[in-house]
Amino acid sequence: MLISVAILGPPNNDIRAVLGNDIAIGAYREGKLPFPNGAIIARLAWKQVKDPASDDALSHEPLSSSSIGKLLSGTFVAGSPTNLQFMVRDSAKYASTGGWGFAQFTDGKPDAIVQRSCWSCHALAPDRGFVFTRYSP
Amino acid sequence: MLISVAILGPPNNDIRAVLGNDIAIGAYREGKLPFPNGAIIARLAWKQVKDPASDDALSHEPLSSSSIGKLLSGTFVAGSPTNLQFMVRDSAKYASTGGWGFAQFTDGKPDAIVQRSCWSCHALAPDRGFVFTRYSP
Repeated sequence: MLISVAILGPPNNDIRAVLGNDIAIGAYREGKLPFPNGAIIARLAWKQVKDPASDDALSHEPLSSSSIGKLLSGTFVAGSPTNLQFMVRDSAKYASTGGWGFAQFTDGKPDAIVQRSCWSCHALAPDRGFVFTRYSP
Repeated sequence: MLISVAILGPPNNDIRAVLGNDIAIGAYREGKLPFPNGAIIARLAWKQVKDPASDDALSHEPLSSSSIGKLLSGTFVAGSPTNLQFMVRDSAKYASTGGWGFAQFTDGKPDAIVQRSCWSCHALAPDRGFVFTRYSP
């Protein structure tokens, strides 16, 4: 289920969605920290691209009022996917990285050596259970 | 389930997620148009806000390398929610608006008279079944 969404600027220029399994969502809703074992959080991301259909709507004078033009002119949608990232909660197995295992997949294949590089940033957010993303109801 | 995400510029300045029920997701995956009756598409949106935690990470010199600084400096996350919008497929009931019923809720209450104003733009996308959002696998 959806936890939240975010926009990353240069050099990433992506738009991302963060999903959680039932255990992760339950912990968010109850404000329970640390996250319980079994919680899984997934980060999907796509490149920011302009949507041709919005431009079409813009140029369609008979139907688009000036207000519709303004509404659509800054629209970016999800383009090609970048990679998939996962956080998996197992307080015993991943005790040295705050109880979280990290993984990243590019074109369906796991990327090596992300555990430490992911943790170097997530370690900065102990008050959030080492998870940056907040729940958007 | 998640269909896709998007960013809307001024004057909206929001970040949005589009969700679908099983009927809508199935139609997207099979590339089936028009959408079958019973398909429901929901649009959630939140104001774009800077994430204080990203700024904290940025200023945390011992752990953040220059590459991490660049990664986080353009981050926007979901702030307060704006409104909820729905498209409901019923080709008989909503025959005059492409088979789609439109609704919008602000602070949990339905907004009046959105059927025509929503349709005025969605009518521009017949090749997409009158739905702007594309599926992001």
